Amino acid sequence: MTETTSPLCTLAVDLGGTKVEAALVRDGVVLEGTRHRAPTGRSADADALTAAVRDVVGRTLAAVPAGAHIDGAGIGSAGPVDRHAGTISPLNLPVEDFPLARVVAEVVGEGVPVVLALDGTCIALAEARYGAARDVDSSVSMVVSTGVGGGIVLGGAVVPGDSGNAGHVGQLRLAATRPVAGPREDTVEEIASGPGSVRWARAQGWRGDTGEELSRDAAAGDEIARAAIVRSATAVGQGIASMGALLDVRRYVIGGGFSFVSSDYVELVQDAARAAAVLPASHVTEVVRAELGGDAPLVGAACLASADRTIRS
Amino acid sequence: MTETTSPLCTLAVDLGGTKVEAALVRDGVVLEGTRHRAPTGRSADADALTAAVRDVVGRTLAAVPAGAHIDGAGIGSAGPVDRHAGTISPLNLPVEDFPLARVVAEVVGEGVPVVLALDGTCIALAEARYGAARDVDSSVSMVVSTGVGGGIVLGGAVVPGDSGNAGHVGQLRLAATRPVAGPREDTVEEIASGPGSVRWARAQGWRGDTGEELSRDAAAGDEIARAAIVRSATAVGQGIASMGALLDVRRYVIGGGFSFVSSDYVELVQDAARAAAVLPASHVTEVVRAELGGDAPLVGAACLASADRTIRS
Repeated sequence: MTETTSPLCTLAVDLGGTKVEAALVRDGVVLEGTRHRAPTGRSADADALTAAVRDVVGRTLAAVPAGAHIDGAGIGSAGPVDRHAGTISPLNLPVEDFPLARVVAEVVGEGVPVVLALDGTCIALAEARYGAARDVDSSVSMVVSTGVGGGIVLGGAVVPGDSGNAGHVGQLRLAATRPVAGPREDTVEEIASGPGSVRWARAQGWRGDTGEELSRDAAAGDEIARAAIVRSATAVGQGIASMGALLDVRRYVIGGGFSFVSSDYVELVQDAARAAAVLPASHVTEVVRAELGGDAPLVGAACLASADRTIRS
Repeated sequence: MTETTSPLCTLAVDLGGTKVEAALVRDGVVLEGTRHRAPTGRSADADALTAAVRDVVGRTLAAVPAGAHIDGAGIGSAGPVDRHAGTISPLNLPVEDFPLARVVAEVVGEGVPVVLALDGTCIALAEARYGAARDVDSSVSMVVSTGVGGGIVLGGAVVPGDSGNAGHVGQLRLAATRPVAGPREDTVEEIASGPGSVRWARAQGWRGDTGEELSRDAAAGDEIARAAIVRSATAVGQGIASMGALLDVRRYVIGGGFSFVSSDYVELVQDAARAAAVLPASHVTEVVRAELGGDAPLVGAACLASADRTIRS
C-alpha cells in the first residue's frame, strides 16, 4: 500500500574539517533517523572524500520515507568554496577545487537541484528562518569556536558573495585598543577564537591548555582566564561595530563552542559592540545566543535548496 | 498643441552639508536646464531647510518638459537618515529628524512615490547602474573627500541597512600596521580623508594646509606629502580588505575630490587592498575610478524612485 500524499523533504549535507554529515530536513527540522556521518580530516584526499560523501548521502537517501521525495539538495561546506563551479578548497582538508556539488548530484540523480554555500552562510540562513533572527529581516550570525566564521542575511536574503565566500567575519581586522602582550594578532579570529584566547592567557602566565579549562578557571576566580574571555568577547564586539557601520544590521547571533566559555559571554559581546559603535544606529545593536546549535548547518543547507531558498545571485 | 508621448522622468534631490540640489533625471542622465541648488550649512535650521528644499524642488518641477511627467521622487541625503520615517539628522546641519521626505512630497503632490536614502547609497546605485560597476552584480562605491563615505550594491540590489545607514565605510576601524606619529586615529575616515591626510603630514613637519597643496608638493617630490597620500590609499585599501572578507565583493569604485590627489591613487588603493587580503578570493579585488562624478548623487537618487529601483527592504 502506498502513501497518497507525497511530502517533500530536502537533502542536507554539511562538510567540515573533521566530518561530513547528511540528513533529510523538512520545515527546519532534521528528520529522525536520517542523519549519517563519516570522518574527513587531513588525510582525506579526493578519493576518500568522494567515498565519504557518497556513503553518507546514500545512507540518508535510503531513509527517505515511503511516499516522500526530495525537492533539492543543499550543501554547506568549510571554505573557501566556489559556488558557481560547485567546488570546495577547504583550508583544513588536502583537496583543491573538489567537485562536491557534482559528487552529491551523481548520488541524488538528475532533476534534483543542488546548491552549494559556505557553512557559515547556511548557519546564518537557518537562524534567520527558524532561530534567533527569525523575527528580523537582516542579521549576521557568528560562530566562535576553533575559528570564527559566520554568515549574513540582508532583507530576507542570504548574502553569498561573488564567489560564495561572504561572511568571513573572523577575517575582519581590528584596531588594537590597548598594548597586547604576546604575538601580534589583529583579526577577530586570531584574538577571539578558543585557541587564540588560550594562547593569550598562556602568554600572561596562565597554565591551562583548553577552552574548557579557561571556562572553569575563570568561574573559579582566575583573573587571567577571565581577562582572556573578556578579550575574546571584546574582539567579537568590535568586529560587530565595524559590521554595524558597514551594513546597518541590528541583530547579531552568536554560537559556537567557545561562546559558552562563560554565561555572560553574549552580554560581554553586546557591551563591547555598543561601546565601539561610531554611529547612532549602531548603539541599538542586539547580540543574542544562537538557537539551533548543531542542527544549524544542516537546517540551513536544506533552506538553500528548498522552498525556503532566497539566495540572491 | 500637446505632445502625444508622455515620457517619464524622475525628480532627484541631493541634500548635503553645504547645499541642496534638485534635478530631473531620465535614463541616468540629468536633464539640461533642470538642475537647481540652494545653500544649506550650519545655520540652516528646520525652517530655512524647508524653504531651501521647497525652492529647489519647485524650480525643478517648473522645468518638467511639456507632455512629460514625474514617475517618482528620489532623495539622497547626508546621514544619519531614517529611511522608514523619511527623516534626516545630518551631523553637519543643525536639524534632527528633519522630515525631508514629507517636505518633498508636499511639493510634488499626491500619487508620486518618494524614496529616501543615504547619499552614499545613491552614489553606489548610480555607479552600479550607469558607471564603473555597471558590468558586475555587486560593488562597493567609496567617496574619499572631506569625509569618507560609501554605499553597497549586492546581487543587483542596493543595501540600505535596517535604518538606512548602511555603507559607512569611513567608520570601519583599522588595525594600525605601524607606529603612527600624531593623534591616535583608527577609522578609515580619520586616516584617509583629505583633512586626516593634511593633519598627519603637518604632524610630520609638512607646512601646507590643503589637499591641493599636498597633491602639488607630492608631485614635486616632497616625501612627506607623498607619504601622506600613500597612507591614505593604504587605509582605504585595508578597509576594502575587511569588506572583501565580509562581503566577498570584487569591485570597488573610488571617487571623491581627495582621490584625485595623485594620478596613481586608485592603483595604490588596489595594491594595499590585495596586500591586506586574508582570503584567496580577495586577491582578485578590482579597484577602479568612479565614472559619474558630481552627477552620481542625483542620478542615484533618481534610480531609487524610478523603474531602476531595486532597493530591498
